[in-house]
Amino acid sequence: MRNILLKIAYDGTAYCGWQRQPGSPTVCGRLEEALTELCGVPIKLDGTSRTDAGVHALGQQASFQLPDGGIPTERIAKAVNDKLAKDRLESVGDIRVLWAKEMPEGFHARFSSLGKRYIYRISDGEEKSVFRRTRFYQVTGRLDVAAMREAAGYIAGEHDFACFMASGSTPQESTVRTVYRLDVEELPLAGEPGSAAGREIRIIIEGNGFLYNMVRIIAGTLTEVGLGRRGAESVAAAIEGRDRSLAGHPAPPQGLYLDEVFYQL
Amino acid sequence: MRNILLKIAYDGTAYCGWQRQPGSPTVCGRLEEALTELCGVPIKLDGTSRTDAGVHALGQQASFQLPDGGIPTERIAKAVNDKLAKDRLESVGDIRVLWAKEMPEGFHARFSSLGKRYIYRISDGEEKSVFRRTRFYQVTGRLDVAAMREAAGYIAGEHDFACFMASGSTPQESTVRTVYRLDVEELPLAGEPGSAAGREIRIIIEGNGFLYNMVRIIAGTLTEVGLGRRGAESVAAAIEGRDRSLAGHPAPPQGLYLDEVFYQL
Repeated sequence: MRNILLKIAYDGTAYCGWQRQPGSPTVCGRLEEALTELCGVPIKLDGTSRTDAGVHALGQQASFQLPDGGIPTERIAKAVNDKLAKDRLESVGDIRVLWAKEMPEGFHARFSSLGKRYIYRISDGEEKSVFRRTRFYQVTGRLDVAAMREAAGYIAGEHDFACFMASGSTPQESTVRTVYRLDVEELPLAGEPGSAAGREIRIIIEGNGFLYNMVRIIAGTLTEVGLGRRGAESVAAAIEGRDRSLAGHPAPPQGLYLDEVFYQL
Repeated sequence: MRNILLKIAYDGTAYCGWQRQPGSPTVCGRLEEALTELCGVPIKLDGTSRTDAGVHALGQQASFQLPDGGIPTERIAKAVNDKLAKDRLESVGDIRVLWAKEMPEGFHARFSSLGKRYIYRISDGEEKSVFRRTRFYQVTGRLDVAAMREAAGYIAGEHDFACFMASGSTPQESTVRTVYRLDVEELPLAGEPGSAAGREIRIIIEGNGFLYNMVRIIAGTLTEVGLGRRGAESVAAAIEGRDRSLAGHPAPPQGLYLDEVFYQL
């Protein structure tokens, strides 16, 4: 039996999230279907992150068990991409396997992971774009990036992040997590035709684990700080208070990208 | 009666092109529907360019007749955008009216136009992106931009462009057109997460008129030059020969953007 790990990129726009749900298009469901067809045996994927509907991935990872014999591991990526691209523009589907690797027995995409990095993309200004609607949180007004960075400083580190967990989530043994990195970058939108004047505010967050909706609630809270609707220090108070109602709104799913999963290899 | 001109941006991915077709989703059809609902009278739009399925616009223009009274012209853009965005992410639809203006009697979005500018976006390299699949022509290999510029030099100016007209097109009185500008630009893809190494090759073409599929055939022919599949001078020979079979393949629709329409105002 081979233990195969896949690295996967996807445009999540058309899907009801990663996790398989009977009767709904999901990234995991679509990929399992293509892999099952390719390998000739039923494939069940374990993904690292259960991304929500509309959330994207640059580097999701997922592992599965495959009997020896049959398709060589190094041919899986191209073969499954060809299946995923059927009838799609230019033979590129909205899900793409970047590579497939054989891992030691006992390795599991989710339980072996040491942490993850997410990117959250915001554009600000008066002009909204039809091309950014599935890729960015388009905020009206000018974000104060310095204030957002100040607020981000309160979040980085090990804290009880109960205030950033969606209410109604499955109860967790602990809501303490460590955010290793939380940067707020400012980038030009210059590469996009028709938006010479715009800019992107990109939040980059790495941590050893994230509570349900934690990245989107952090992005929403930082956006409120950037718009002057709350002070940077209110973020420290929200963490201290461990109360969801003290933090901001969850930023919408289409700005969120699972960027990278970390393992000790 | 008011003669109203609209400037319109759209992501063409979900549409069978601009021109209305009963039973198929088209940009013109969707926009007429929203305007008819808004204005309370049947609206018929005259668009400047009949873009193909999957082609985008940053600055399509279209005019229509509207009885006096009813919604003031300056409120049309916001009101129709609200209708177009219904149930869409973050209240931004895939069609967006940038502005509405009253024009003098006799003005017509198509017949009064003096010319248009199109952009064609290509990315090259080994890596294909799920996020570029509906926005770019993703070419495998490295494009020789200098050779593409040399070939573009043969196209600029007034010529009989019969070789760049799709075979089977409606016969034209004349296939002579003037290309005022044809630039091949090289831009970083740096704004796109996960593609730090990539680059965009952007073709910018302005002219007084374009034959059916002319921009896509020019983009495809320049791509073949860039990949070394044909010499730059073969483009001069194709124009000279006035024969479709001497030019290259039509580049796919998703890389094409109608950027701007020119009028003498």
